[in-house]
Amino acid sequence: MEDCIFCKIIRGEIPSYKIYEDDFVFAFLDVNPLAKGHTLIIPKEHKKDIFEIEDLDKIVSVAKIIANKMKESLNCEGVNIYHASGEAAGQTVFHFHMHLIPRKKGDNVDFSSLKVIKVEKDEFEDLSSKLKIEK
Amino acid sequence: MEDCIFCKIIRGEIPSYKIYEDDFVFAFLDVNPLAKGHTLIIPKEHKKDIFEIEDLDKIVSVAKIIANKMKESLNCEGVNIYHASGEAAGQTVFHFHMHLIPRKKGDNVDFSSLKVIKVEKDEFEDLSSKLKIEK
Repeated sequence: MEDCIFCKIIRGEIPSYKIYEDDFVFAFLDVNPLAKGHTLIIPKEHKKDIFEIEDLDKIVSVAKIIANKMKESLNCEGVNIYHASGEAAGQTVFHFHMHLIPRKKGDNVDFSSLKVIKVEKDEFEDLSSKLKIEK
Repeated sequence: MEDCIFCKIIRGEIPSYKIYEDDFVFAFLDVNPLAKGHTLIIPKEHKKDIFEIEDLDKIVSVAKIIANKMKESLNCEGVNIYHASGEAAGQTVFHFHMHLIPRKKGDNVDFSSLKVIKVEKDEFEDLSSKLKIEK
């Protein structure tokens, strides 16, 4: 897409710290990282979000490869995956991207600060009946 | 695995609000949700984390199905995916799980509170050379 910042990165019109590229997937360092080595994994074809993307399997297959590389090269002890689809979910660049964040004990990435909400039993029952998918 | 809480949920020894099950994947409502409808998607075979799991494509394929169902049945406007592999990353149950969180404008889920760190240019260069994967 002409004006998409990630499409420009893929085309090389905007420089990036590229770490992986194949026919379908491109990965580069996030310049606003939560931790050192924080990587964004994106489809080369412009797809807005999880509702549009078809090659999600290719994205996660690369995520697994890079997670292993992070362990080997950065000595990280774990990784987080984070993704947002939709403005309401905090998406700001509307080209699908998956965050992969290398983690070490004592770093200051704090997903645990997210607040759990109280849901009553009847509401759980209502939610699960609404979401139930029959095979 | 005998003592794994998620294996017990799969076997029905611990009750859950199940929303999806096939030969490989099981999904149920998180009882400590960040938002109503917050779902956990897990492999039926016990695999600890992203480094062990082989069927990540099956997990995300189900994530996409449930994300669509969330949009249709809960009228959510977006979704977040969150995953932790390793204690350093905040993993507390050591059976691979992917969080899928339905989002609406004005809910109180706040991934944006996570703090960005400053990384210098030479450090970005070092990190990208360490992580670079040649095809």
